[in-house]
Formats: sequence, C-alpha cells, structure tokens
Amino acid sequence: MDVGFIGLGHMGRPMAANLVKAGHRVRVWNRSREKAADLLAAGAMLAANPAEAARAGVVITMLADDDAVRAVLEGEMGLAVGLPQDGLHISMSTISYELSQRLVRRHAEQGQKFVAAPVLGRPEAAQAAKLFVVAAGPDDQIDRAEPLLTALGQRLFRLGDEPPKANLVKLCSNFMLLAAVDSMVQAMTLAGKAGVEPSAFLEVVTGTVFDAPAYRTYGEIITHERFRPAAFGAPLALKDMRLTGAAAEELRAPMPFLGVVRDHLLQTIALDGESVDWSALALAVRRNAGV
Amino acid sequence: MDVGFIGLGHMGRPMAANLVKAGHRVRVWNRSREKAADLLAAGAMLAANPAEAARAGVVITMLADDDAVRAVLEGEMGLAVGLPQDGLHISMSTISYELSQRLVRRHAEQGQKFVAAPVLGRPEAAQAAKLFVVAAGPDDQIDRAEPLLTALGQRLFRLGDEPPKANLVKLCSNFMLLAAVDSMVQAMTLAGKAGVEPSAFLEVVTGTVFDAPAYRTYGEIITHERFRPAAFGAPLALKDMRLTGAAAEELRAPMPFLGVVRDHLLQTIALDGESVDWSALALAVRRNAGV
Amino acid sequence: MDVGFIGLGHMGRPMAANLVKAGHRVRVWNRSREKAADLLAAGAMLAANPAEAARAGVVITMLADDDAVRAVLEGEMGLAVGLPQDGLHISMSTISYELSQRLVRRHAEQGQKFVAAPVLGRPEAAQAAKLFVVAAGPDDQIDRAEPLLTALGQRLFRLGDEPPKANLVKLCSNFMLLAAVDSMVQAMTLAGKAGVEPSAFLEVVTGTVFDAPAYRTYGEIITHERFRPAAFGAPLALKDMRLTGAAAEELRAPMPFLGVVRDHLLQTIALDGESVDWSALALAVRRNAGV
Amino acid sequence: MDVGFIGLGHMGRPMAANLVKAGHRVRVWNRSREKAADLLAAGAMLAANPAEAARAGVVITMLADDDAVRAVLEGEMGLAVGLPQDGLHISMSTISYELSQRLVRRHAEQGQKFVAAPVLGRPEAAQAAKLFVVAAGPDDQIDRAEPLLTALGQRLFRLGDEPPKANLVKLCSNFMLLAAVDSMVQAMTLAGKAGVEPSAFLEVVTGTVFDAPAYRTYGEIITHERFRPAAFGAPLALKDMRLTGAAAEELRAPMPFLGVVRDHLLQTIALDGESVDWSALALAVRRNAGV
Repeated sequence: MDVGFIGLGHMGRPMAANLVKAGHRVRVWNRSREKAADLLAAGAMLAANPAEAARAGVVITMLADDDAVRAVLEGEMGLAVGLPQDGLHISMSTISYELSQRLVRRHAEQGQKFVAAPVLGRPEAAQAAKLFVVAAGPDDQIDRAEPLLTALGQRLFRLGDEPPKANLVKLCSNFMLLAAVDSMVQAMTLAGKAGVEPSAFLEVVTGTVFDAPAYRTYGEIITHERFRPAAFGAPLALKDMRLTGAAAEELRAPMPFLGVVRDHLLQTIALDGESVDWSALALAVRRNAGV
Repeated sequence: MDVGFIGLGHMGRPMAANLVKAGHRVRVWNRSREKAADLLAAGAMLAANPAEAARAGVVITMLADDDAVRAVLEGEMGLAVGLPQDGLHISMSTISYELSQRLVRRHAEQGQKFVAAPVLGRPEAAQAAKLFVVAAGPDDQIDRAEPLLTALGQRLFRLGDEPPKANLVKLCSNFMLLAAVDSMVQAMTLAGKAGVEPSAFLEVVTGTVFDAPAYRTYGEIITHERFRPAAFGAPLALKDMRLTGAAAEELRAPMPFLGVVRDHLLQTIALDGESVDWSALALAVRRNAGV
Repeated sequence: MDVGFIGLGHMGRPMAANLVKAGHRVRVWNRSREKAADLLAAGAMLAANPAEAARAGVVITMLADDDAVRAVLEGEMGLAVGLPQDGLHISMSTISYELSQRLVRRHAEQGQKFVAAPVLGRPEAAQAAKLFVVAAGPDDQIDRAEPLLTALGQRLFRLGDEPPKANLVKLCSNFMLLAAVDSMVQAMTLAGKAGVEPSAFLEVVTGTVFDAPAYRTYGEIITHERFRPAAFGAPLALKDMRLTGAAAEELRAPMPFLGVVRDHLLQTIALDGESVDWSALALAVRRNAGV
Repeated sequence: MDVGFIGLGHMGRPMAANLVKAGHRVRVWNRSREKAADLLAAGAMLAANPAEAARAGVVITMLADDDAVRAVLEGEMGLAVGLPQDGLHISMSTISYELSQRLVRRHAEQGQKFVAAPVLGRPEAAQAAKLFVVAAGPDDQIDRAEPLLTALGQRLFRLGDEPPKANLVKLCSNFMLLAAVDSMVQAMTLAGKAGVEPSAFLEVVTGTVFDAPAYRTYGEIITHERFRPAAFGAPLALKDMRLTGAAAEELRAPMPFLGVVRDHLLQTIALDGESVDWSALALAVRRNAGV
C-alpha cells in the first residue's frame, strides 16, 4: 500500500521500518531529516513536506504531542492540504481527547477520513512489531487501515466509530500504568522500611494477584534503578497526565489518583532532572519516606 | 500431623476442611460452635477451648482481626496456655504489623515458636486449596509447618525469619489490590462518560498491560455490579487499610493512595451499607462523577 | 485621567463605575454592548472597539479568562493596535501565569508598558471600592496606575517589577481560599455526623484560630446553603484551579491539595450543574459522607 | 475551690500555676515529680497519686494522649478510685473521640460526673491564661467547672451536653490548622519558585482574606524556619491526625486532606527527626518542589 508516515522519533522510526519491511511503499517525513537516513537506506522514500507525504492517500502521524500534530496538519505544505478527498489520516500519536474531536471535524470539512489508532507499548515493542493498537473510527476505514496496523502490532482493538474514544482509552491506560507503578512503589517502600527485600516483595506480588507485564517490567526497572536513558521520559508522562486531567475536566469526572501521580512526576523532574524515565517517580516516593 | 485450628469463618472453614482431607488430625475451635458441624462430620475433632486446640503442639489461627487473635491467645483457656514448650503457633490471619511483633515476643517468653503465614485469595481459592501463602519465621519452623501450608495453598513464599514481614507484605498486597481496582474504576468512569463501554474498556486493559487476575476478576465484578453478598466486606477492607496506615505511621512512610482508597471505602459504607463487598467502592467513584 | 476599560462583567461593571465616580474619563468597551448602558448614563463614553478604548493611553482589562484577553488584544481593532507607544495596559483579570509572561513580551515588543494588577474580592467588594489590588510591574508604571487602582480598592499591594508574579499570587490566593473552605467543610461534616451543629462549630473556629473573612463569609454561605445565584461560579473556580495547576506544572511544584479541590468542584458541577457557586463543593463533601 | 490537677507537661504546668494564682487550692500529680517543684513553691500541694488528687472532688487531667489518661484513670491508686460520688472529672487533654465516649460510660457507672474541656492554644497562651476552652457535658457541671476554666482561658465555648463532641471539635480544629498551614506552604512554595518573597506573599494573604492568627503565627514561624525547639512536636500532631482519622472512620466521613497532612508529617519526621515542630511540614513541601 502507498502510505505516508510523519514523525520519526523513538516510536515512529521502528514503526515506519516495519511498514517498509511488510512491503508497503512508505513516504516518510520528519522535521529533522537526518532521522530518515536508515529508513531511506531500507527502501522508504523521502517526502519534502507533510502535504507530499499525505498525497499517498493514506497517511500515518506518530508525533510527540498536540502541538506537533497541529504543526504538520496546517499551513500551505500541511497534511490537510496534501491529503486527497477520501484520503485517510491515521493518527497514532498520544494526543488529547480535545484535539481528536477537532481532527474529526477538520477532516470531515474537507471530505477526508480519520481514524485514531494510538498504540500501547515501549520502543522495544515497536521494533518487534508487538505493539497493541487501539483503534476507533468508521468501520470501513479501520478495515482500510488494518494491513498497516497489523504490520505494526500484535493485536488490534476496535472501539467503535468515534475516534476520540481511542485516544481517551489510551490516556486512561497510561494513567492506570502510572497508578499501578506508583502503588507498587508505595507498598515496596513501606515493606522496605521493615527490611523486606524489593526482589522478595516483587516475587510475591507478581507471583500472585499482579502477574501482569505492567508489574513485572516496572518492578525490574525500579529494583535496578534503570531510569536513564529514559524509554519514556518523565516530562512526556507528565504531558499525558495533563491530557488525562483535561479530559477529566471536560467530562466532569473526578480522578483522585491523578493529582498524586502528577505530583510525584513533578517532584521527580524537580529533583532528578528532565531526562529521567517516568518510572523514576519511585525516587520521589522513596525520598519522601527518608529512604 | 496433629494440629489445632482456631477460627471457622468464610476462610477458616474451607481451610480446616482441606487439612482434614489431607489426612491431618485436626482439632477445631470456634467461638460459635455451630460453624464446626460440617467439619466434625468430615472427621475433625472439637476442642473445648483454644488451649485444648493448642495442645496439639501445632496450632493455626485464622481469625477476623487483631482483637479476635488477642481474645483466643490470652486467658486461662487461651492458646498461650495450652501450647506446649516448642509448640508452634501459625498465624494465618491478616493482623497488624504491631500485633505480629507482640506475638513474636509473647511466644518467645514462653519458649514457644511462632510463624506468620497470611494467605492471599478469596474464599473460592480457600475451598480449592489454591491460596497463596506468604510465610515468615525461623526456617526450621516453616519447614515444620510446610505439610500443613501446602495442603491449603498452591504456592508458598518464604520471606525470611521475622514473622511481621509476612504480615506487612500481606497488608501491602491488599493495599495494591485496592489501589489497582480503584485506578481501574477511575479510568473506566472517565472513559464511560465519553461513551466507552465498560466491557470494551476492560478488553483493552486486560488484553495488554494489565493481563492479571486482579484486573480480570474485579473488572468482571464491577461491570456486573456483583457487590452482594460480599466475598470480602468493605468494613474488613477498611480494617486492612487502617492496619496498613498504622504500619506506615510506625515505619514513617507516606502512602498517598491510602487516604484515597480509605475515603472511597468510607463513602461506600456510608451510602451503601456495611454489607457490600469492598469492590463496591466503584459505586462511590461513579457517583462522584455523576454517573 | 483618561482611561479605557474593557470587560463589563460582574466585576468590571462596578469597577468602571467607581472610576467614573472618582472623576476619571472612562471609555468602556464590552463584547455585548447592552452591559454598558448604566455606565454611559453615569458619564462613561462608549468605545467602538478595544483599539479605541486603548487609545486613551491607559487601558484596563477585566475579563473572564485567557481567551477573552487574547481576543481583545489581537486583531485589527485590538488593544495592542490602539495603545500608543508608552501607553499602559493594566491587566486586572485573573489570567494564567503563562499569558502574563506573554503579555510582558508582547507589549515590550511594541514599546508599550504593562502592569498586572489582579484583584481579590467578590462583586460586593467591587461595588464598594473595597477590593484588594495585587500589582506587579515597573515601579513608575504602578505609580502611574495608582490613582486608578486606589479608586477601585481599599489597599494596594506591590509585588515587584515582574507582572506575572502578581497573577501567580492571585491564583495562589484563590487556591488557599478553596483549600480553606474545603478543609472547613470536611471538618464540619465530620463533626456534624457526631451531632455538632454547624453554627456551634463555626462559632468555635471563627472565634479562635480562624477569625478571618475567608472562614466567616464562607461559613455563613455554607451553613445557609446560599449557592445560587453564584457570586463566583464553580466553573470559573475550576478554571482558576486549572491555571494554578498549569503554573505548578511549569514551575515544577507539587500541590497535593489541588487535585482534591479540583475533584470536589468537578463532582459539584457534575451533580449540581454549571450554575452553582464554587462554595457548593460543600455539597460534594457532605454527599460523600452520606449526609 | 479544691481541685486536683494531673499532668504537668508543657501545657499543664502553666495551667496549674494559673489556678494557684487565681486562689484555688490545687493538688498536683505528675508521673515524674520534679516537674512539680515550681508549683509547690508557688503554693500547690503534692498528691501522692492520681486517686489522692481526685479526692479534691474536682480533678482536671491534662495529659499527652489516650494511654496517659487511661494510665491515671485505672488501678488501685487511680483517679476513678479517688474521685468521690458526684465528683467531677474535667478532661482537658486532646484525646480520642472514642476514649471520651468510654469516659462518659466509666464515670456514669460510678456515679461520677464528667466534662470534656479541651483547649486551643500553644504554651504561651497557657501561660498568659489566654487559652480557648471548648467544653461539653451536663450544663450544671460546666457551671461547676467554670471558675476553673475561666482562670485558664480567655473564652469558654459550650457545645452541649455530650462530652465527646468537645473532643471531636478540638481534633477538627487541629486538622483545620494543619490544613491551613499546609495549603499556605504549598502556595508559598509555588510562588517562591517564581521568585515571590515569602514575606511579600504573607503580607498579601494575611492582609486580605486570611487575616487570622493561624496564618499570621505560622507564616512567621515558617518564614524564619523556627522549627526547633518544638512548641508542639510533629509526632504529637501526627497522633492528633490519627485520632481525627479514627473518628472519621467511626463516623464514616471521608476527609481527603487528612492523608495529605499526615503524609507530610511522616515525611518531616522521617527526614528531620522526631523533635521538630509540626509546622516543619513546610520542609517536606519545599523539598518535594526541589527547593
């Protein structure tokens, strides 16, 4: 399939590579071109601007935040200009519930199609094409996107025909992940002050009710304090929590754990710098207990 | 093995039955005798009082709270009087970190042995001998207890030779469970206000990073609002959170999620009564969002 | 003095009236003109657009939020176009820390002066010229603004020469007010469940350590449930808490009470509607206790 | 009046001295006798034990916590033995809601009278006889106690005839005080990170809506970091918050700020030791912001 791919960061690069590997004709674009080098060598083409990438008829965006999506969308050389009538924009970035609502309206105005398909998984999963894809949008458009989405992930979830729902579920999932890790760290810190070894603690919880990737993976990271380099930086996680909070505000839903994880992230960034992984919130929790 | 078993509640009854089934000679005692009927029919003997149960040389307690443990321990007909020199008390109840420390000293004064071996699992797991047992105490005493513990559970974790550590880890595990369910409900409620079906939401989260019994089991319970009869009542969960808070206070460890889950339990009990399952905290979260 | 006044809402109208009464020549502008009628009768002039109001050389803005300020600032007929070189913009609205930083840069680029002078007080205080004014900006510009500011308020605080500080202190003050009232309601609700009358409770706390306007005024409002019509609506308070949170995020400062008051506001709005006063968060607190 | 006075700590000593000064015949008792020296020199008599102090017919207790009250109450030489029929026990300590309920029953069983009359104020206020007294109990018994209570304080509040209400209101008042100071510190810390001086911040807030002793006194203490020696130690404040939490649990009332102040106290104690004033929770808040 001809497809444009916009955004070649930690996640976007391996994803675009998997599309090439699966035999799709991929036109890539990134704000800083040098990120595209490997992909071009592997067979991707370089688009001169977002509009040109979108001319492929189907275009994927995988960008850092709302501002980056807005920036590639608009303007004379923007995605919205290049995407043909009935062309499909697949937004895989973690963006706000609000922006997703706007994208629905924006593309509808121009007779374009829109699917939100954010992903769950860290860069390793992107590389291994083991992402989970949470898609929402018109059924026929998800069908159209499916050959691309299945080249990127191990499983595709369909959440109905309103794209913003997929973005919201992605934010909710990140919130639950941060809350899970935060609760684990609070518990480990308490047990630790009584002399219980982190590894012994983890063996019990992941061997019983919490036998889940979230607890296993982050239990390891935290026990060995592998907070740098960041797989998913604390400021990015903070941004996701802000977007979750904005959706909670719009939808009038209290979320009492949200303030706690947000504050732990703020503390972590204030004390350990902008470059740590979000799981370094463990350092904040421990410090607060005098550990 | 000869063993006394004190406490025939929701959990204790099936546990004692499994000991009988495994061929042990079990002397049971319970404050209200009628709970023992089935067990006697199955081959257990009735002890006239805790002291007599303890005379078996090894005695298990499985009681509702600290007060109940203190009540069977002391007095003329108490466990501490009946248990012989070098006799072993295996405390499987969810008791406070502080009481466990006292039991260590109390039994040491009398030349008796003490192992804490609280369990993870609901009554169904007790029945099926599928509990997880988290044990701490002198190694040789856990060895001594092992034939009993393995008759009750699917797996035995050893946490070293200080019994209170096992009680603390059990409390931590309950705290994590409540926090996990609370975070899931907060997220589901938010997504629900945007029109995402609970079942679709659960499929995504339990199909990805939260593929764990905690999320699956409680996701089901909450979606179908199966809060009565209580498998584990809200007031009991509140008690566990109080004990967790007491340990946190003693050990000087902040636990910011603790106040939140405690308040949700209080709200649930205030509005839905004392007899609901703790997972009914979902009702509090939903109500607060106007759902 | 010649002065433009933009924004004739609950607060702006009485403020503009006080400027007229003090003998200043006031050109008013408001998006919906009919709000200006009384002022014109009292001697104010009508400006055709924000630019014309700003041509007075000194212009005050008293608007509902950041968007409203941005809307009057920019465009062909905007404040920034009309304000002469060395003209002074006095921003009295409760705006974000971030927008205030932008206004500093924006006006500097055009050789204009900028003072932030947000106010503390409800509409009754605006009417009685009893507002407190918290000003920051270049000293000579605050001197220049002083005849206007003293016509509006009972006291002027000077916070140095960086305007955003005044906006931040105003947000902090609102945060403290919501936290104070929330804590009072939590305490009153607890005492109420033991049978302590709200009035008796208030007599003790306002008669001892909390002998302050914040507690007296809101104690009365809450005891008599005077939540409608709103003097300061819950959605506006929610906006202020969002701005406080945004500043906390930018400055990397955890604020654990913030999530709590925000959630109580959300719950209040979800259950009691958009039109209640923010102090109706008392209803949320009581409901959560089953009162 | 003949009166026994039990408990000669930071608060009790100046209180007993004020009773002597007012012309009452005071029999003092304290666990460690040397604390009584000054009082004996001033004209007080020494009681050999709590029972002897209570034989005065009216006895005041001013002790550190529930355990201390229980300890002087019971036993062969306890207050309950010495207090005659119709004798009056005035409990001025900050004790739990639950213990107050028990004292009601205990004294009723023996035909003795009971009034709870906890005080608000720091040791300086005790010295200056400027305490606030919050009393509850049978009206005629408060009348009986009044000559004593007015010798100790500047104002007497009456909260009806159920003593536990006075204890609960006292706990609520402490909770509100901690919450007020905590909110002020959170706000000052945020403003401080933007460069706002603490003194300038305090001038605004205490000059406007927060013109109350709570904010003035603690604003000063915090700005000048006068956390040692403790006027009211962090562990004692933590105890009060635990008692507040216990009452909230018994009465089924959520108190979301409670966990926050409790955690700040725990962090303060964990990092700054057991001997700091409770207002040192400011250090925790600042540290968490990287200040």
